[in-house]
Amino acid sequence: MQALHWDGHALRYEPRYSTPRPPIAGGGSPTLGAPGGRPPTSATSTVLVKVHLAGICSTDLQILKGYMNFTGVPGHEFVGSVAEGPQEWLGKRVVGEINFGCGACDDCGRDLARHCANRRVMGIVNADGAFAEYVAVPVANLHAVAGTISDEEAVFTEPLAAAFEILTQIHVDHGHEVLVLGDGKLGNLCAQVLALTGARVTALGKHSDKLELIKKAGVRAVALHDWQPRPFDVVVEATGSASGLELALSAVRPRGTLVLKSTIAGNHQVSLAPIVINEINVIGSRCGPFADALNALAAKRVAVSPLVEAIYPLQDGITAVARATRAGAMKILLRP
Amino acid sequence: MQALHWDGHALRYEPRYSTPRPPIAGGGSPTLGAPGGRPPTSATSTVLVKVHLAGICSTDLQILKGYMNFTGVPGHEFVGSVAEGPQEWLGKRVVGEINFGCGACDDCGRDLARHCANRRVMGIVNADGAFAEYVAVPVANLHAVAGTISDEEAVFTEPLAAAFEILTQIHVDHGHEVLVLGDGKLGNLCAQVLALTGARVTALGKHSDKLELIKKAGVRAVALHDWQPRPFDVVVEATGSASGLELALSAVRPRGTLVLKSTIAGNHQVSLAPIVINEINVIGSRCGPFADALNALAAKRVAVSPLVEAIYPLQDGITAVARATRAGAMKILLRP
Repeated sequence: MQALHWDGHALRYEPRYSTPRPPIAGGGSPTLGAPGGRPPTSATSTVLVKVHLAGICSTDLQILKGYMNFTGVPGHEFVGSVAEGPQEWLGKRVVGEINFGCGACDDCGRDLARHCANRRVMGIVNADGAFAEYVAVPVANLHAVAGTISDEEAVFTEPLAAAFEILTQIHVDHGHEVLVLGDGKLGNLCAQVLALTGARVTALGKHSDKLELIKKAGVRAVALHDWQPRPFDVVVEATGSASGLELALSAVRPRGTLVLKSTIAGNHQVSLAPIVINEINVIGSRCGPFADALNALAAKRVAVSPLVEAIYPLQDGITAVARATRAGAMKILLRP
Repeated sequence: MQALHWDGHALRYEPRYSTPRPPIAGGGSPTLGAPGGRPPTSATSTVLVKVHLAGICSTDLQILKGYMNFTGVPGHEFVGSVAEGPQEWLGKRVVGEINFGCGACDDCGRDLARHCANRRVMGIVNADGAFAEYVAVPVANLHAVAGTISDEEAVFTEPLAAAFEILTQIHVDHGHEVLVLGDGKLGNLCAQVLALTGARVTALGKHSDKLELIKKAGVRAVALHDWQPRPFDVVVEATGSASGLELALSAVRPRGTLVLKSTIAGNHQVSLAPIVINEINVIGSRCGPFADALNALAAKRVAVSPLVEAIYPLQDGITAVARATRAGAMKILLRP
């Protein structure tokens, strides 16, 4: 099959990449487990998904700089249809959660597979990803996509779920003043999701075209050069920059909440003194609930299609990645 | 009156320091406000407290290195008796909260005077402190001390309240594994307070004598060289060191909570990446509820007297501060 492959040094288009890790069980070719295999539809069964669209995300670009020492096929935002797997999933249009827990540890037992210490992560840790014709996904990670959601929308399920994660971690309602720092893809989705709570959301960014997109989605957006600092109950850091992080810390009211939404921002070094003095609650926020994202997409409560800048065939993936790397790029999609 | 005075360069014993800012109203000498003064017992009235004992805290030592650019009389841990003020307080034994809010802003209106942007802070920001014969304290900040609590215990109310602050910020109960990093005064008090919840508390430190004190208070204590890393639900950073902060971050389980209890630790620079990846909740924690501390002292549920290393007369305050500055010093008290 065709795929983009990262060997730790170069990203190459491979028109004949070896098929992904075959389905563990229930997919016609069980290779693990006791003789006889597991029941056909056990949670650890793996299906093979034919990828319709895959999205290039900032994390992918970090991986191509060495993040997580990953080698293999990158890509973790996708929508596709099940090509091999248990009968009840065959042919279904699906998206998939990206953390593959071991299924045996305490975290997996507490439904925290995404924090399992032994987890594989699609396209990030020890598992081939979705920049390919097919991707292998555990049955437990699958979510069916309603017919009213287009492929171009469904491919945003993973990043949109990451935005919804914030609402599983903190209480936000219409009484709150919320600031989202960053007008890129992540900032846009976070601003839209937080606005669903009725909170007074302000997005702050540097790019007039991107701020315009946020305004079109119905959320207040302000350019950094027009900014009048004031304290917010909740601040979401979605810029991935050190200066964004410092601005975020200064914009939280005493005893307020700062949500760190960008792993890249997390690599910056900052002084924690303001956190202690102002008793700020800092919450790291990563992957989130796919069901909430799919419900919002089905109900057309969030606008994601305007974030698409271009769609490339997979064989032009190198060009697509270069375009996604440009400062200010919006969502670049790959179509295998 | 006698006092220790810090002029920004040197700490000096002043046997004839000018009396502290006189009571604003209700104390016999109103100097601020409209003609006629405020009602005698308004919340903004100030009393004059004759200091019985004052404690030297790490923050005081930081101030003598330039922290907050403070000049004046340091000291914010004290117990004394009201010498001048409204009739109902006269002669009463008291402790006092250290943040003097403006009384007019949103934070003060929300009962968050300790976060008022215009606050004065006793011995720290624009208000003379307790290393003196007398200290001026707003009536609203006073707490009466029960007769069953000795002066040597009551002088710990402020740092003990800071430990209780954790319980106002996060939920801790007997199902939780809690790690307190640091076996000094702050770590000791935090470990004892957290153990009151029934949580399984472990204190980790480097000093066998201090770990012994924690054990005597009934809390599990482990030496760093015997440490077997494992994940904790809640970790409290009370070492004030960069290495403690890094150990703390690594010891929190995914989605667990890290309480930053030391403003000094907050000055260190750290990477926030683990916070995002493990979705850790980091909470800065500072001053706390005096009532909870006084209740615990009255009920003898917390042992504080063993933390006292020495008591010096105020005129030997320079020697006392030098002793408090020694690595590993426990609580040094001043008696004016």
